[in-house]
Amino acid sequence: MSDQDLVIGANLPDYEFVRMVVDEAYRQGARSVSVLYTDDQTARSKFLYGSETAIDYAPSWLQEGLAPALQNGMAYLRLGGSDPSLLKDIDPGKVARSSKAAAVVGKPISEAIVGGATNWCIVPCVSPRWAKHVYPDLAEAEAVEKLWDVVFATTRADQPDPVAAWKQHVEQVKRNMDRLNSYGFQALRFQGPGTDLTVGLADGHVWCGVESFARNGAVCSPNIPTEEVFTMPHRNRVEGHVRSTKPLSLRGQVLDGIQVTFKDGAVTSVCAEQGEDVIKKLIETDEGARRLGEVALVPHSSPVSQTGLLFFDTLFDENAASHIALGRAYADTMCDYFEIPVDERSQRGANDSLIHVDWMIGSDEVDVDGIGPDNQAVPVMRKGEWAWSA
Amino acid sequence: MSDQDLVIGANLPDYEFVRMVVDEAYRQGARSVSVLYTDDQTARSKFLYGSETAIDYAPSWLQEGLAPALQNGMAYLRLGGSDPSLLKDIDPGKVARSSKAAAVVGKPISEAIVGGATNWCIVPCVSPRWAKHVYPDLAEAEAVEKLWDVVFATTRADQPDPVAAWKQHVEQVKRNMDRLNSYGFQALRFQGPGTDLTVGLADGHVWCGVESFARNGAVCSPNIPTEEVFTMPHRNRVEGHVRSTKPLSLRGQVLDGIQVTFKDGAVTSVCAEQGEDVIKKLIETDEGARRLGEVALVPHSSPVSQTGLLFFDTLFDENAASHIALGRAYADTMCDYFEIPVDERSQRGANDSLIHVDWMIGSDEVDVDGIGPDNQAVPVMRKGEWAWSA
Repeated sequence: MSDQDLVIGANLPDYEFVRMVVDEAYRQGARSVSVLYTDDQTARSKFLYGSETAIDYAPSWLQEGLAPALQNGMAYLRLGGSDPSLLKDIDPGKVARSSKAAAVVGKPISEAIVGGATNWCIVPCVSPRWAKHVYPDLAEAEAVEKLWDVVFATTRADQPDPVAAWKQHVEQVKRNMDRLNSYGFQALRFQGPGTDLTVGLADGHVWCGVESFARNGAVCSPNIPTEEVFTMPHRNRVEGHVRSTKPLSLRGQVLDGIQVTFKDGAVTSVCAEQGEDVIKKLIETDEGARRLGEVALVPHSSPVSQTGLLFFDTLFDENAASHIALGRAYADTMCDYFEIPVDERSQRGANDSLIHVDWMIGSDEVDVDGIGPDNQAVPVMRKGEWAWSA
Repeated sequence: MSDQDLVIGANLPDYEFVRMVVDEAYRQGARSVSVLYTDDQTARSKFLYGSETAIDYAPSWLQEGLAPALQNGMAYLRLGGSDPSLLKDIDPGKVARSSKAAAVVGKPISEAIVGGATNWCIVPCVSPRWAKHVYPDLAEAEAVEKLWDVVFATTRADQPDPVAAWKQHVEQVKRNMDRLNSYGFQALRFQGPGTDLTVGLADGHVWCGVESFARNGAVCSPNIPTEEVFTMPHRNRVEGHVRSTKPLSLRGQVLDGIQVTFKDGAVTSVCAEQGEDVIKKLIETDEGARRLGEVALVPHSSPVSQTGLLFFDTLFDENAASHIALGRAYADTMCDYFEIPVDERSQRGANDSLIHVDWMIGSDEVDVDGIGPDNQAVPVMRKGEWAWSA
């Protein structure tokens, strides 16, 4: 919006791209553009050389300035694409302690952003290390080039009229949202290899997708690319077992083959072929970390999925497959969330946590049924595709 | 100090040096290390593409988080060395408007830092653009190499035991400080080509140098290198005319041949051979911008001066020559400053302003006398050297 403040979070190696974004933001009438750089290398430094005190500590001064500004409507743009296995050689226990400290001081930021105070967006930015993870057999420059092509294709930036193409995409996703909202399902049931999971939905849940309406008056697409429609699970009503269908980059490590059992909404057992320590530490973060805050449906034919690539980056991989998220729920996925007393939000099913971690459970071998108010099963997805024509 | 928080301000191209500093800070027991990068290129962007609203505006959210943390004793390290003529093609009027907006929101930071709340330090970091200004005839890589050598020499980092060499330097500067404090001068008189300036000193002024004692209990050298001893002029008692002896990099432009006349402490006329617009805008910032906040003595034989180089960087050039500063005075240059009621500080001579800009008025052609309590002139410097042996 014109005369709006903007803060950009970016990875240090992306500074050339950042400079272009800053120029364009001023051209579009930004009142101020601030850039906060993070550097993978200095992020490692604390684990390599820091004291035990340093591991358990995160300073809060930046968040104390930033959170009120976001609550007051400063726009937030995050350029993603860091090294997926940055901390693979670091003790996951230390990473968990550090992540928790960061999540505690970061909570006011999350509350402002996912709480819908302002327009925000996460967009990809190709870094050499990320590109080499996606294309390990290519030379770095070639990998970077190729991954940018994929970014432009999946975000529709390569279309003759990218904005028109995006609007068309928005309309298509909205049709699926509207259909799901009209069904009023009480639960979704996922069935596939290693998976039979019933995800009860929160009372008064709303299906969302593509666009958010922020309290500062802006309409925004919080993720680009985005293919998902998502809503709020009921924190106490998830039952069964589920197996991940894609690897997941989390806390600088790659996790794979995650298997989880839920009872009364909570994780009762978890194992993984790779990164088991990381996910076990993750669900110990707090009470809400072992319950779901999001369930999302993505057709297997999504452009991201059709690339056939593993991105090791949630922004992409979560848009290639249906997924669930452990942790905090999104306010806009419950009707009138901010008018509901805090105690009652939880009773209606809203989960709270320091974490929000998506992981992929959909594929072309997974079916999804919606369980209607009358307990009848309605086909929603078959072999990973919508059971209806859009 | 161990378990202390540290924030580093750095220019984007210096990230490799920053990484080394972050590693070392954690090794030395820092509880947290945060890095705030500034980028010369995006700093230009606002002037090239921003609206009129953007020019007059600076966001305050970062300072609102940072200032309380500094007041609470977080250490501050600034790595200097940006492009001296970054904004040479930009309208100085716009730069002045933008600088003023930044100074207003930055005031709580200045107050914390120069107010002595915490340990802080400005150190040089060689950037290619800076090096090319100092050595315009050398290839970039060679210029960078050579300027680093000068940095190491002038900071004593090239000595067999740099810490011992620094301590010896501290002792030597302290002897001059003690001597000046014992004289109890009421004024200093500078005489040389184009200069006959009497700088009245504040009532209760204290000569300082090399080390500061911060309220968080730390002892620090706020500038490295530093050769100066400095104190507080009386805001109403500066008389005469003065000519600059070195160019000055200010607001992205290089100023030279500055001539200023003072009456009753205030600038009554100013001209410059280069950058006259910039200095004229500067003294319009506020009432205190046309009065002095610092007077400093540096012998012409200082190691920085002996390099024979023009650095276009105040951290160096102010340590090659005696200088004065327009604007804000330093709290620690007035005895018991924080115990004195605010109104009375000004009566005793303390100046306040959004700016603090040093410029060089000493050389081997300039003599300095101290005017004692009995109105007798005492030789302090002759041809730019101390009138006594140290």
